[in-house]
Amino acid sequence: MSASKKDIVEFLVQEFPKSRCRVDEVGGGSATVSHEVGPDDLRPGATVFGPLLMTVADVALYVAILGEIGIVPLAVTTNLTINFLRRPSAGKRIIGRCRLLKVGKRQAVGEVLLYSEGDPQAVSHAVGTYSIPPTR
Amino acid sequence: MSASKKDIVEFLVQEFPKSRCRVDEVGGGSATVSHEVGPDDLRPGATVFGPLLMTVADVALYVAILGEIGIVPLAVTTNLTINFLRRPSAGKRIIGRCRLLKVGKRQAVGEVLLYSEGDPQAVSHAVGTYSIPPTR
Amino acid sequence: MSASKKDIVEFLVQEFPKSRCRVDEVGGGSATVSHEVGPDDLRPGATVFGPLLMTVADVALYVAILGEIGIVPLAVTTNLTINFLRRPSAGKRIIGRCRLLKVGKRQAVGEVLLYSEGDPQAVSHAVGTYSIPPTR
Amino acid sequence: MSASKKDIVEFLVQEFPKSRCRVDEVGGGSATVSHEVGPDDLRPGATVFGPLLMTVADVALYVAILGEIGIVPLAVTTNLTINFLRRPSAGKRIIGRCRLLKVGKRQAVGEVLLYSEGDPQAVSHAVGTYSIPPTR
Repeated sequence: MSASKKDIVEFLVQEFPKSRCRVDEVGGGSATVSHEVGPDDLRPGATVFGPLLMTVADVALYVAILGEIGIVPLAVTTNLTINFLRRPSAGKRIIGRCRLLKVGKRQAVGEVLLYSEGDPQAVSHAVGTYSIPPTR
Repeated sequence: MSASKKDIVEFLVQEFPKSRCRVDEVGGGSATVSHEVGPDDLRPGATVFGPLLMTVADVALYVAILGEIGIVPLAVTTNLTINFLRRPSAGKRIIGRCRLLKVGKRQAVGEVLLYSEGDPQAVSHAVGTYSIPPTR
Repeated sequence: MSASKKDIVEFLVQEFPKSRCRVDEVGGGSATVSHEVGPDDLRPGATVFGPLLMTVADVALYVAILGEIGIVPLAVTTNLTINFLRRPSAGKRIIGRCRLLKVGKRQAVGEVLLYSEGDPQAVSHAVGTYSIPPTR
Repeated sequence: MSASKKDIVEFLVQEFPKSRCRVDEVGGGSATVSHEVGPDDLRPGATVFGPLLMTVADVALYVAILGEIGIVPLAVTTNLTINFLRRPSAGKRIIGRCRLLKVGKRQAVGEVLLYSEGDPQAVSHAVGTYSIPPTR
């Protein structure tokens, strides 16, 4: 019941046409997505607006889960916790690497490490839960 | 050292000119902000894209904190946990009501209840921590 | 399908005979529980060991949920977030007041404010999710 | 300024004499601790009482942080989020493996995977923040 990267990209383009998140990799209970950082995404301190990081974390989780369970549009986030660790670079893409910790019948849980492109130290860590609708 | 609603609105317009969040009330350790919901903010299920709710929660916290400690641009989120409770209405503004639980010298903690405008049941609950820079 | 305070107390005594948590009130989507603080529960700084506070938060949630859905022993915590706000007093009971934010068919979410007995300022805030088994 | 396993064990025995957590390894920004599971630690469903898992997560974080910054008794948890993934075995020790994500001057953040001894799949995942006192 898994979905390929191509399936997921097509689904996201159709359902989230304005999304600026790009799917880089998906499979094996993992996913990597990335997001450009433009001048409007910055906040005081020459760093990235926090909600952009939350968006990348949420999308990375969604993509990893769709990769496992197939295109289930109504899978929805029930819980997300994000810790901001370091100041992301103002001029670099944000990369989100998700690793699923559990994929059950009713819910999936995963964690996401977020990076400024090219920097090995994570800027944020997120962990989140998706609810999977019972009739699929 | 507190900041008025007018001070905060001016600061946000200058620093976050593209923000679609509106400050409705601030003071007494609380704040209410709201955010329009347009066609691009929806996701499958005729509901609101989760990261928009995270954005409202984060801004509500920021505004409530600035209301208490004054305009400290470099106050930054260190942690945010959000629970999604009910499906928000596709066509209604999201309202975020923040109540601060603690305002210390080094950090502030608050919780935010998020609503679809006109509906008394919360659609999400968030709790978050901001770090306050030592030199202010 | 709700359970009374008496039902819940009997159930907890039977299933958790060593628990030092006391049920003080339950009903209307809320619960208050409390826990003694003895010499073995302290940590450096003359304050209470953090996991005791997590225990009180978890039990307060469980009791509030059983009050709504009846005695469902297999309801289990899926997620808990706790923020420590102030140092609890070494010599006072910890009080946990839970308010449920959602009671659905598959999950319940609630928040808990924790206090040192007699002090009006919360020492901790927790929010947690319980999974409710499908066959009840 | 780091502390050895021996230093940490001595400190914990002195400050937390009733603790049933054992330090197995510490160093390099990581720690492994474990906790026995006795009959009084179980809950309905023949599984482990949730707060025991929270305790192991909290202690694993504390030990990993002391390993990096030395014996700083007043380092305190400010935030902990735990996700329960699978039912732990009733009869096996709980193992907590902490990996620090950040050790700053004012705070440290780490994640902990919890296991039932001998089972490679994590039963829980936790992420937490400790506040480090300014004068050390």
